[in-house]
Amino acid sequence: MHDNNSDRTEISGLGEFGLIDHLTQGIELKNPSSRYGVGDDAAVIDQAGLQTLVSVDLLVEGVHFDLTYTPLKHLGYKAAIVNFSDMAAMNARPTQIVVGIALSNRFSLEAVEAIYAGIRLACETYKVDLVGGDTTSSRAGLFISVTVIGEAKESDICYRKGASENDLLCVSGDLGAAYMGLLLLEREKAVFKANPDMQPDLDGFDYVLQRQLKPEARIDIVDALKNAGIKPTSMIDISDGLASEIKHLCKASKLGCTIYEDKLPIDVMTASVAEEFKMVPSVAALNGGEDYELLFTVKVTDYEKVNKIPGISIIGHFTANIGEEVMITADNQSFDIKAQGWDAIRNTFQKDS
Amino acid sequence: MHDNNSDRTEISGLGEFGLIDHLTQGIELKNPSSRYGVGDDAAVIDQAGLQTLVSVDLLVEGVHFDLTYTPLKHLGYKAAIVNFSDMAAMNARPTQIVVGIALSNRFSLEAVEAIYAGIRLACETYKVDLVGGDTTSSRAGLFISVTVIGEAKESDICYRKGASENDLLCVSGDLGAAYMGLLLLEREKAVFKANPDMQPDLDGFDYVLQRQLKPEARIDIVDALKNAGIKPTSMIDISDGLASEIKHLCKASKLGCTIYEDKLPIDVMTASVAEEFKMVPSVAALNGGEDYELLFTVKVTDYEKVNKIPGISIIGHFTANIGEEVMITADNQSFDIKAQGWDAIRNTFQKDS
Repeated sequence: MHDNNSDRTEISGLGEFGLIDHLTQGIELKNPSSRYGVGDDAAVIDQAGLQTLVSVDLLVEGVHFDLTYTPLKHLGYKAAIVNFSDMAAMNARPTQIVVGIALSNRFSLEAVEAIYAGIRLACETYKVDLVGGDTTSSRAGLFISVTVIGEAKESDICYRKGASENDLLCVSGDLGAAYMGLLLLEREKAVFKANPDMQPDLDGFDYVLQRQLKPEARIDIVDALKNAGIKPTSMIDISDGLASEIKHLCKASKLGCTIYEDKLPIDVMTASVAEEFKMVPSVAALNGGEDYELLFTVKVTDYEKVNKIPGISIIGHFTANIGEEVMITADNQSFDIKAQGWDAIRNTFQKDS
Repeated sequence: MHDNNSDRTEISGLGEFGLIDHLTQGIELKNPSSRYGVGDDAAVIDQAGLQTLVSVDLLVEGVHFDLTYTPLKHLGYKAAIVNFSDMAAMNARPTQIVVGIALSNRFSLEAVEAIYAGIRLACETYKVDLVGGDTTSSRAGLFISVTVIGEAKESDICYRKGASENDLLCVSGDLGAAYMGLLLLEREKAVFKANPDMQPDLDGFDYVLQRQLKPEARIDIVDALKNAGIKPTSMIDISDGLASEIKHLCKASKLGCTIYEDKLPIDVMTASVAEEFKMVPSVAALNGGEDYELLFTVKVTDYEKVNKIPGISIIGHFTANIGEEVMITADNQSFDIKAQGWDAIRNTFQKDS
């Protein structure tokens, strides 16, 4: 057991997804209960025929959140929600979480209480049990690690792979709002910088800010699809941006896709803030992250059923053209979809270096 | 959702266990599958009669490890082992882990590879599957979060509570060695300080250093007890020190205890290093942490059976005297057992402030 640190390769060259691929190469599952490992929104563990799903997400101060404008209770709520969303992305239901928090002595007991209050509110809202955790100190900064456990029948689980040519690409809710909320908060940050302890007052804050600060997980969509008798052929949650997630689905299912700009669900306020920032609204929808909506595919034969569910938009379809992911604009031009979504590794390492 | 940060209570006043108690007060489990939540080495989830256990541990640079003398591959190995040990402490078997790593741009790809190599070696050795994770950046320092999933039959699970008066207190392996290894490494640190990139060469390092740098989880003891037909009445792993863990068992089972100094299993090298540091060896055994041995109780009627298992020492017994936890010394004096074990919250916050 010796390390060899004489050669140095920068992690920023690989990015988050490249790094994960690299580190998990050649892992072979040995336990009969390990049904599905690395490579989707959650792992799947078989327990006597019932499937247990597990997923972990880290939230790091200065990378995933900025305490200048993020109330701690909202932070706790969001830390839980992003994990619940991973379960929704598997067409499963979150049932338990374990929480790890590391924090420096800059934080008081009241601060940790506020984070926990947010986590517990999310648990109550989504009927999830907080069953364990680890609380420890850090030399600097706040780190939150949430591991979620979920349940699903084997036949209900949706992976990223599994879609076929002509399957319809669908998205829940609307897109780009959380990113517009972030841009607004970043603009406001200058105001708060004068007093680093200041927490923003949310009274009068509107839709896009709530989408950034208090997102929800679309377990209701999982229920709605089940009630409508639809099992998605592939599914993922939109955490890094629609473009990035579309590419994940296409890669996993070995397909291409065509989507239509005028079908992208964009709230009026999102469009208005985007224009204020001189940004094309569809670009905000494609590349803004943290919406935590669901992107999924259904068979063409499910068109009528899916079309009846409120709050779901059909934005395009899969094609057999592997590597060709295109968006048809309102004026009928075709553009390649580029994933400029948020990549925690690449973004931060580049900002720092 | 508003925070109230006008009142400030210092976390250091509560300590790690006080903080956890405080934050998890009044949590009610709502899912039928949530069998046991916060308060033991792991949570227990019921899946169609088979029990799934889950536990999380955080390792934070500058708090739990010092990269001056900890090779990264060993760090990865230990991060996995301390979680496997939580499963052993429940009389269960680890089956899967998910790993979260946050690291600053001070770390190269080779550094992350070394950590993962250690984690994967531990997984291979213990036949555990690495099924998922999250890798992200931090502004400063290295954070590792490992969540372990385990399996056990309901009837096999051992909790901290459950012991009765007269039950025999047993411990696996020997104690205090990991702490002596730490003291040696801290002494050596001055040598390495001149070159912060330098990693210690482990060739010729001996037993106590290995106990600190490459601990093992006592899954073999779980197997040995099962083979001998013994189910412990209570169990915990020794991460914070024997004294601290004894108090956890006594509190959970509402009992007192008597242990005997001359029964404490202490390796000759541990005793020799302790004396070099002018420390009574039994104090090292009582208050040194990170041995990851198992502390458990068995019924008096299991005395013959447990006595036959190699590497298990019977160190005392439980009494009905709640709050009285005493050690009888070699010269027949009685001392109250004080937990001066390692408390991540209290230690670090006090050092910093």
